[in-house]
Amino acid sequence: MNSTAQLLTLDQRLVEQVLCAFIADQVHKNGFQNAVVGVSGGLDSAVVLALVQRALGAPHTFALLMPYRLSAPESLELGQTLCNELGVAHETIDISPSVDAYFDRFPATEKLQIGNKCARERMAVLYDFSSRRHALVAGTSNKSELLVGYSTLWGDSAAAFMPIGDLYKTQVFALARQLNIPAAIIARQPSADLWQNQTDEGELGITYKALDEILFLLIDRRLPPEQVAAQGHDAAAIERISRMIRNSQYKRTMPAVAKLQARTIGIDFRYPRDWGK
Amino acid sequence: MNSTAQLLTLDQRLVEQVLCAFIADQVHKNGFQNAVVGVSGGLDSAVVLALVQRALGAPHTFALLMPYRLSAPESLELGQTLCNELGVAHETIDISPSVDAYFDRFPATEKLQIGNKCARERMAVLYDFSSRRHALVAGTSNKSELLVGYSTLWGDSAAAFMPIGDLYKTQVFALARQLNIPAAIIARQPSADLWQNQTDEGELGITYKALDEILFLLIDRRLPPEQVAAQGHDAAAIERISRMIRNSQYKRTMPAVAKLQARTIGIDFRYPRDWGK
Repeated sequence: MNSTAQLLTLDQRLVEQVLCAFIADQVHKNGFQNAVVGVSGGLDSAVVLALVQRALGAPHTFALLMPYRLSAPESLELGQTLCNELGVAHETIDISPSVDAYFDRFPATEKLQIGNKCARERMAVLYDFSSRRHALVAGTSNKSELLVGYSTLWGDSAAAFMPIGDLYKTQVFALARQLNIPAAIIARQPSADLWQNQTDEGELGITYKALDEILFLLIDRRLPPEQVAAQGHDAAAIERISRMIRNSQYKRTMPAVAKLQARTIGIDFRYPRDWGK
Repeated sequence: MNSTAQLLTLDQRLVEQVLCAFIADQVHKNGFQNAVVGVSGGLDSAVVLALVQRALGAPHTFALLMPYRLSAPESLELGQTLCNELGVAHETIDISPSVDAYFDRFPATEKLQIGNKCARERMAVLYDFSSRRHALVAGTSNKSELLVGYSTLWGDSAAAFMPIGDLYKTQVFALARQLNIPAAIIARQPSADLWQNQTDEGELGITYKALDEILFLLIDRRLPPEQVAAQGHDAAAIERISRMIRNSQYKRTMPAVAKLQARTIGIDFRYPRDWGK
């Protein structure tokens, strides 16, 4: 293990404690007892579901499985297995009829359009379920994808709170082992599951190990690119990732509001999300 | 006109100039030439469409009309008339098939669920159009509704930029007259158009005139509730509006991220939306 990999190694028991306390606090201070998680059959949502179940208890945890007709059948099976192992109530909602009702009339020209529509449909279904069952929506985004913008704006990155939003993907793997996530889920190649044989690492053009080390050094350590390169990372990759971080900032912020008066939302009218709770 | 109403009166020509410059800046610095507006047949989207058309020119302005089967037919007609008057290319996309594909299987128990699903479907369609036509999504929310949370989270309040997000509803009316918005649109009762005879003022339980004056005094003037009441406003209404502002803060912020490492998104990793542009 190199020194950066060591720095990325966290005390998993402490992480679990902090995140369970965070989840319980977010849910209860907002006047809720329950949370709902969109479970994809992948690693991130499995870890979030396990954390929510530990934080709130299984009776207060709901899972929604929302396959699209192009999703791998294995994803649904693994998601259902996970819910059964955790004793969590789950519902399966095929989003194909809704999504196809749109693309049947306005055919997509790029695969990414379908992926984005699916992500936004899942968000809308999660929030509808949220209002039906009085359950806050727990997001499943991790720090690696949030930083490089590998997410759908107002889709998978839209939620009430993000338990693993400050954990890099390789750290989510480590936490998954601590939480006893089924080995079949941990063993899968990370994928947005939008088409067959799609993998995150293939699309991003870098392994999560290298990506996470570069992100950690750039962001958490605030090292300039030259010093990140001096630790053995490819200069072109560092430059490309730095650009991805800057270019995706719009996905991590609310819309820009034109300032006209004394106090403008997002500019000088700013409070934390839990203001007054 | 009382003194608060006078303070709410802006120099409409200056407002128009500032907003046109804001729109052109937002679109161009993000590498776009075009913007798209969801046009409802109501006042706010009419004003935003007229501003975008003046800022970018008609060939760079697109309008999407997205009726649901419960929308008033008059809304669609007024929206089309507006687009024709402004010389703006528009497309009509009936969102009923997509929205109903969901509720046919999972019937709604409250009308509000349908309104929220429609708002999120429109957002998803606008963003899909955005990627097809390389057009940034202009939001149509005004300051009154943003402050009291009379909007759908990740729905109508989700956009790239908000030209009228710092204008109270009564100020939007004044700007509409300056922009020569068709009288039939200005004359309509403001409504979310989710069901027949729904009006904003009926749902909010207060006139926009009173709401805007209270909001202006509380927010822009930072007056304590007692001093707002001393200017002739109902103490119970002031208290209720203050609570609505605090309780809707979650709609004006990104999801809460659990802090675990040195720099956490939204906590100590914060940059403006146009960072690096």
